[in-house]
Amino acid sequence: MAKIKKINHVAVVVSDIDESLKFWQDAMGIELHHVEDVPSQKSMVAFLPIGESEVELVKPTSDDSGVAKFLAERGGGMHHLCFEVDNIVEMMAELKAKGVRLINEVPNELPGRKMAFVHPKSTGGVLVELYEVTK
Amino acid sequence: MAKIKKINHVAVVVSDIDESLKFWQDAMGIELHHVEDVPSQKSMVAFLPIGESEVELVKPTSDDSGVAKFLAERGGGMHHLCFEVDNIVEMMAELKAKGVRLINEVPNELPGRKMAFVHPKSTGGVLVELYEVTK
Repeated sequence: MAKIKKINHVAVVVSDIDESLKFWQDAMGIELHHVEDVPSQKSMVAFLPIGESEVELVKPTSDDSGVAKFLAERGGGMHHLCFEVDNIVEMMAELKAKGVRLINEVPNELPGRKMAFVHPKSTGGVLVELYEVTK
Repeated sequence: MAKIKKINHVAVVVSDIDESLKFWQDAMGIELHHVEDVPSQKSMVAFLPIGESEVELVKPTSDDSGVAKFLAERGGGMHHLCFEVDNIVEMMAELKAKGVRLINEVPNELPGRKMAFVHPKSTGGVLVELYEVTK
């Protein structure tokens, strides 16, 4: 059986990364690791490691993404909760077999990682991401 | 300077703990540690440790709490993000000095822990909890 190892990150949608860093970095003291353009997610993402997890500040770079719609409709806030698993393909198959609705049929592959989302309808309203480190 | 150590927990508001455990425990495989009545939060809370953090499923036990209003207005979902700090009183003073708005003036004390909330207006829409282990 596939296993969840830890919370990989909590993603927070923001309208302005520099402005957000005033709270998360300057006030809270969580150090910024780097900011990365993630075209597949139509987002600019700031990574702030804390303990074994990260806070990710996600700023939409296009108007037509889920993240952009979230920001327009609800304003900034927690967007999704990501769990690191040892085997994402196995985990997805097991969830599917248990009747859980997935957003992705196959994982999205980026260098060093595979990701997939679970539909909030199956989680009680939480957008859950599954994440496997592949490097 | 006070320091954040890790994500202590992510709190998820639910309408039914048993129903929610079907996803979090049975499907995702995150083991339930225990369920606890927390009268000071007017909630029943299920604790599911994962790595160095926890997922907390929070079910309102009264209609007049913030959590109950959240559930009535938005349905279930992520409610707050809690960071464990080494010294909550120091952290609160530092945040206040930096212009961050706190919900609690002094920490809420329970056996083994002190907690306080930061106002979402100062965080970009995230209800942030600070938590110090005192035992």
